[in-house]
Amino acid sequence: MYEDRIRHPGLLSKIMSADEAAKLFHSGMRVGMSGFTRAGDAKALPRALAERALQDPLSLTLITGASLGNGSDGLMAEAGVLARRMPFQVDPVLRGKINKGEVMFIDQHLSETAEQLRSGNLAAVDIAVIEATAITAAGAIIPTMSVGNSAAFAQQAKQVIIEINLSTPLALEGLHDIYIPHTLPGREPIPLTRVDQRLGSTAIAIDPARIAAIVITDSPDSPSNALPPDAETQAIAGHVIAFLEGEVAAGRMGPELLPLQAGIGTIANAVLHGLIGSPFQNMTMYSEVLQDSAIELLDSGQLAFASASSITLSAAVHQKLMDNIDHYRSKIVLRPQEISNHPEIVRRLGIIALNTALEFDIYGNVNSTHVCGTHMMNGIGGSGDFARNGQVSMFVSKSAAKGGRISSVVPMVSHVDHTEHDVDVLVTEWGYADLRGLAPRERAPLIIERCTHPAYRDQLRAYYDAACQRGGHTPHILEQALSWHTRYQETQSMLAAQ
Amino acid sequence: MYEDRIRHPGLLSKIMSADEAAKLFHSGMRVGMSGFTRAGDAKALPRALAERALQDPLSLTLITGASLGNGSDGLMAEAGVLARRMPFQVDPVLRGKINKGEVMFIDQHLSETAEQLRSGNLAAVDIAVIEATAITAAGAIIPTMSVGNSAAFAQQAKQVIIEINLSTPLALEGLHDIYIPHTLPGREPIPLTRVDQRLGSTAIAIDPARIAAIVITDSPDSPSNALPPDAETQAIAGHVIAFLEGEVAAGRMGPELLPLQAGIGTIANAVLHGLIGSPFQNMTMYSEVLQDSAIELLDSGQLAFASASSITLSAAVHQKLMDNIDHYRSKIVLRPQEISNHPEIVRRLGIIALNTALEFDIYGNVNSTHVCGTHMMNGIGGSGDFARNGQVSMFVSKSAAKGGRISSVVPMVSHVDHTEHDVDVLVTEWGYADLRGLAPRERAPLIIERCTHPAYRDQLRAYYDAACQRGGHTPHILEQALSWHTRYQETQSMLAAQ
Repeated sequence: MYEDRIRHPGLLSKIMSADEAAKLFHSGMRVGMSGFTRAGDAKALPRALAERALQDPLSLTLITGASLGNGSDGLMAEAGVLARRMPFQVDPVLRGKINKGEVMFIDQHLSETAEQLRSGNLAAVDIAVIEATAITAAGAIIPTMSVGNSAAFAQQAKQVIIEINLSTPLALEGLHDIYIPHTLPGREPIPLTRVDQRLGSTAIAIDPARIAAIVITDSPDSPSNALPPDAETQAIAGHVIAFLEGEVAAGRMGPELLPLQAGIGTIANAVLHGLIGSPFQNMTMYSEVLQDSAIELLDSGQLAFASASSITLSAAVHQKLMDNIDHYRSKIVLRPQEISNHPEIVRRLGIIALNTALEFDIYGNVNSTHVCGTHMMNGIGGSGDFARNGQVSMFVSKSAAKGGRISSVVPMVSHVDHTEHDVDVLVTEWGYADLRGLAPRERAPLIIERCTHPAYRDQLRAYYDAACQRGGHTPHILEQALSWHTRYQETQSMLAAQ
Repeated sequence: MYEDRIRHPGLLSKIMSADEAAKLFHSGMRVGMSGFTRAGDAKALPRALAERALQDPLSLTLITGASLGNGSDGLMAEAGVLARRMPFQVDPVLRGKINKGEVMFIDQHLSETAEQLRSGNLAAVDIAVIEATAITAAGAIIPTMSVGNSAAFAQQAKQVIIEINLSTPLALEGLHDIYIPHTLPGREPIPLTRVDQRLGSTAIAIDPARIAAIVITDSPDSPSNALPPDAETQAIAGHVIAFLEGEVAAGRMGPELLPLQAGIGTIANAVLHGLIGSPFQNMTMYSEVLQDSAIELLDSGQLAFASASSITLSAAVHQKLMDNIDHYRSKIVLRPQEISNHPEIVRRLGIIALNTALEFDIYGNVNSTHVCGTHMMNGIGGSGDFARNGQVSMFVSKSAAKGGRISSVVPMVSHVDHTEHDVDVLVTEWGYADLRGLAPRERAPLIIERCTHPAYRDQLRAYYDAACQRGGHTPHILEQALSWHTRYQETQSMLAAQ
């Protein structure tokens, strides 16, 4: 059995249980695991490592593509397995340990981790754990629903553990395009000039002698937890479409737009969902993750092709994709995240970047990660890769949170992930502010009037007017700049007392 | 006369005075001018525009490569010519007007301006003013000591005014490499893979019919105002060299290092000067500007080749370069700033980026631009192009300023230009902090102990320890985070009362 999944005959003898494979690890090791936005993550080893650690303590550095599903990060964090973690996570248990300083979390641009591993800026991974649909006769790894950093891990690790996931259809073969940039010096251009172009192979080539274990699983990916569109996300989508219609009308792009990137999560998914029925046709995506909305746009015929590093879907849309994989495989390609997010490609293709802000300030600086400047939510992910190097960089957010007690528009963000230099358009349910070519003193009134929740506009106007009295290119009253956040910490509301 | 400088015979009739050429402008126009770090700037038109505006008011948007010399920005600002200015400046008079809100300044990544002009994200320039050594028989423009955005301006403007500068040797021809990226969509890779590679032509090709005026000048570039090395900049250079020696010893680069970029100014110049006599050989530069130190490293034989967009030198070194231009022209190339700073190339070549911080915080966020968070100094320049996309991103600063009353290391920077994600190594005269692969709680102790002036270490330790009591991935006490800056504003010192 498993000959259809493990086509290299010498490897059948490597099949073992996850518990046995977990014995290959020892404390201090650096581990690279597959998984990106809860898709294509190893299912059995995280659990086995956590269980082992409860008996036999184990402390690792864990590097992934992006977030894991199945509660894996939480299980491993709880069991003390995670001494260090990079470059992204979304797990509430792990998040708690990061914010207590118990897990050292390194929050990275997702295009950079593999490059840094190869350059030695980050120490190499010792062992890789990669979920696969199958292993080819040559011993190459066919990934599942994400590529992430799996190719970089598999090529660098001394030992590779493969989880064959029987729940993934063999017809995934051909979905992936494995291309790794050359090493320094004398590096050649990455020859990608079209979203639908294939550069490499359909599987991750490695020396089969480094495959130390094969574990058989059948757990599906965790389904997407994006919420359905609501009135506010629909309004945001409407403003994004209005902005894009203006770009087409001004002749800055055609009705096919430029290749779209959309961050993970409810709002980005809702915005793309809103493009269904829009006037845009023959669109393309060059993104890091595809959510339900991308499949719906393929189905509506408006999206011609989608390139990403991962696919994370609701259970129903996942089933549809699997049932029609031969159809979708001609319209989707999954790439390593260093290619999906690569500055060279993002700049060359002229991407429209659409990412979510936790908060932004009156000058257009964006906080994507830190609640009240200190507590990590998830991580910067790929937002910086796209916002810095893309053609148009949009950030979307609801204008308020916690029943109106938090304004997403503040005098000064409490943490900066994206500077004013990298933010072209801000969008909330109230409207959009097009900041291109504007100085800070021009941006502030626009952001206040177009994007801010009405309950906070007077407060922001008063701050800005008083700040201007003090002068400066970017006027602020430093002793009040973070007062909205401290007021929230003290009174559970950013609203000033009347 | 001038036939050696104006080789297209039909253009000799376009010669006119700067005052006449100034009549081609009218209010509301968008003007692109040559000039980058005070090199290769138009000398006559800025003065003529300022003089004209005193009689006949004129209000323009002025876009350049980077900073102008000769007090031009100040003259034009004083005369009310500058309604809007981008992407960089260093003039004290203009700076004052920016900080009063009288001139709208748009502070941009220097790689992006030309791209944004072509994409329409910025409205096109109407008129270009380009300093040239000569005009070829075909009407193409041979630049002088910088290329900057001149090619993009000349290709886009409806009218082009050329300032022929007789003080520049004709032997500058061949120093420049004019290559413009393709437009969207279907853009091809930029084929540059070596620092010394030439991609384009030695002059800026335009339709001679668009040359509206030619003005003859003979004013030299303003000399560099970089200060000579002092004990502190020598100490900084020593720490940079120690870090780089460590990289070579660890095998992450060879003794030729990786291509070096160095920002403008005294400290970066001193650091490069410090490389003379270092163990590094056969080095290359891929930078935006070359200062005296680059010429000295070419002379020492340690620097094999230097690519940049501009050369700004002291009077003595400038004279040496001019006297030996045939020799240096084989070792230097000047490119458009969108190529010298291009994310695609910076990432591909694996550049070591060395830029100056105004201040940085205990987590590695860098402020390059705003004094006390509000008042613009110069602009972000190319620092973001290199810091984000390079292989190793270093920021240097003296640990204190104003006789010790300002600490360059603070709890939280008052403005963020470079986030923790983009900062690998921080260096002051006290030492360097290597932040690669470290979480915020690991960075803070290192930055405090290695980089901070001893007079401020206890204060920073106390802040950090108290912040950790509050928890968080990036611990802060928000109500005190900017207190060092407000204390300075109140007491003229960041030192806490004993």
